[in-house]
Amino acid sequence: MEKITYLDNAATTKPFAEVSQIYKECFDKFYNPSAVYSLGVLVRKKIDIARKNICKYLHGELGKLIFTASATEADNLALSCFKPRANNSIAVFVGEHPAVFNKAKALETAGAKVIYLPMKQDGSVDEIAKHMDSATSFVSIMHVSNETGAINNIAQIVKDIKKINPKAIVHADGVQAFGKIPVNLRELGVDMYTISAHKIYGPKGVGALWVKNGININPIIYGGGQENNLRSGTENVAGILSLEYCAQKVTSDLANNYNVVKSYRESFIEELKNNNVTFEVNGNGSPYILNLTFEDLRGEVLLHSLEKHGIYISTGSACSSKKPDNRTLKGMSKTDKQIQGTVRISFSPYDDINITEITKIMSAEIKDLQSKIKGK
Amino acid sequence: MEKITYLDNAATTKPFAEVSQIYKECFDKFYNPSAVYSLGVLVRKKIDIARKNICKYLHGELGKLIFTASATEADNLALSCFKPRANNSIAVFVGEHPAVFNKAKALETAGAKVIYLPMKQDGSVDEIAKHMDSATSFVSIMHVSNETGAINNIAQIVKDIKKINPKAIVHADGVQAFGKIPVNLRELGVDMYTISAHKIYGPKGVGALWVKNGININPIIYGGGQENNLRSGTENVAGILSLEYCAQKVTSDLANNYNVVKSYRESFIEELKNNNVTFEVNGNGSPYILNLTFEDLRGEVLLHSLEKHGIYISTGSACSSKKPDNRTLKGMSKTDKQIQGTVRISFSPYDDINITEITKIMSAEIKDLQSKIKGK
Repeated sequence: MEKITYLDNAATTKPFAEVSQIYKECFDKFYNPSAVYSLGVLVRKKIDIARKNICKYLHGELGKLIFTASATEADNLALSCFKPRANNSIAVFVGEHPAVFNKAKALETAGAKVIYLPMKQDGSVDEIAKHMDSATSFVSIMHVSNETGAINNIAQIVKDIKKINPKAIVHADGVQAFGKIPVNLRELGVDMYTISAHKIYGPKGVGALWVKNGININPIIYGGGQENNLRSGTENVAGILSLEYCAQKVTSDLANNYNVVKSYRESFIEELKNNNVTFEVNGNGSPYILNLTFEDLRGEVLLHSLEKHGIYISTGSACSSKKPDNRTLKGMSKTDKQIQGTVRISFSPYDDINITEITKIMSAEIKDLQSKIKGK
Repeated sequence: MEKITYLDNAATTKPFAEVSQIYKECFDKFYNPSAVYSLGVLVRKKIDIARKNICKYLHGELGKLIFTASATEADNLALSCFKPRANNSIAVFVGEHPAVFNKAKALETAGAKVIYLPMKQDGSVDEIAKHMDSATSFVSIMHVSNETGAINNIAQIVKDIKKINPKAIVHADGVQAFGKIPVNLRELGVDMYTISAHKIYGPKGVGALWVKNGININPIIYGGGQENNLRSGTENVAGILSLEYCAQKVTSDLANNYNVVKSYRESFIEELKNNNVTFEVNGNGSPYILNLTFEDLRGEVLLHSLEKHGIYISTGSACSSKKPDNRTLKGMSKTDKQIQGTVRISFSPYDDINITEITKIMSAEIKDLQSKIKGK
């Protein structure tokens, strides 16, 4: 079998080996956590412990966790607590993941006033005070961009927002932040925070929304009243316990992982330069993501030419890879041609990768493609 | 370790051993199905094949399947296509699972006119024509009751509804029907149908809504546009492929399973009678569920006394077991005392159980509890 070099870890990650084991155990103790007999009660207790533990890893002891089927659902659940009235507005960052952006669009269609917070050249959100006012009662700004890795200074942003409207609720999508950069919800000061399992070496189909005590949210799924009446449906026990395991592991490995990935990213840039490739780095934040624009090149063509070598990168987030438009790069004032020439490379600290070899192959392919285009 | 006799299969079922293997394989090929490179495309293809296969098992080739995180979400998604207007109404069966019932309640709170279709003594829905009219544009009626196993004659009900309003959309929650009694969506004539994985020996966290071609539904979760823009969030690949596996297995085992479970249920009733226990059987439909009312007994006390013998039953659906109220039994005109004296026993054809032994233990416990109550 051909060797696979997977460099699309911002799209999804390979579950830890232990996750399979957790599933096996949960399938053995498969009882319904709502059952009143001991077998069910034991499962319920495991979920409650997971809930507390994950809050601890987030330094979010002053809030509660609602388990969902995805970060997308968690984002939607967060934004659903904004109730459009005659004189209020919701503000979302223009670079948000579609889970926040398209939910905001749906609110707009339903009559809400939506403020789209623009982006600075570096991919982070523009100064909030210029755009929101005291009628803005809900703000959603991602912690780390899934496209560029650009980091928003959430702690400062929350302070700025609360200065304008102390009652404004602030939500941050932390999918590309949690387990990758330090996340301390007490210090960030947000009211809600979204996390995902499959971006931290866990299974697909599990996410969670952290909600600060005192913040009221409204369910988007009604039924048996699970998750404290906020999210009905029999709990995905194995998914939840896997999220707990992964959250524990990535937070305890965080400092070391960060250094590994940082060295990957730095070497990648350096070696491409050494190979005389010209490019621009978009966004300079999380070392987990390297977003590059090449001239005279189509990102998708480069992607497929690398695929032949067993190297897998992307042209942008999987959730937007099939759409022609890229809000984030547009927000950074990239031209259409530059957007077409952009790829995203995203690392896992748990993979041992040979940057010299990869960048050598990549450089050769880039030069080949550029010469073909120039030759036309 | 003590032997466990699990008789709460209507609450959740033990996943087939093959499901762990499916998870393991999917965690190995963990790629994002939205990725444009071959590894992602292969995963996408597996999902599409699963989608087609499950439609085939449902005889629902004239519709499409939307994968969700639960039957609860699928029910909510179905009811979300009802848009309250000045002059329309939605009708739901009073015995529905909370996923339908509480979503209907939420629609009512938001201003919709909701008609609650009453129940006949046998647990099935009362004659529709008596309650709905031509302004009723959406009707939701479960195929098999999760409390009593009572079967609704969906094919006839759909005809009755369409006679009154040909444009009315009909949804059926088939969670306790699919894989247990014959389900042929072409013959049933419904517009939407809900199924769940964890009730057919699959994992928790996966469900699906079947939607007939031509019926428009509206998303309740917005984002990356997965599931044909109707349900965003990275697909729970392992869950979906497990649902496919389980759906295949239970439909191919259906006739044999039905006979096994029917004999379990009949023996159970017979042996309890032979042991001189007095009881009433509530609902007479699916052999998978046996709902019994005892006099001078509290169901919860019986449940816990059987637990000591390693026998696990329930006092009602897990989703309502912690609530004092039981809509289904009330709908069947049971008194509060009778409701308190009711238990649900639900079988799996894949478990080898000793009915004689179980009923002997149960009969002794029942008599013991009744004599204590009478002695007071």
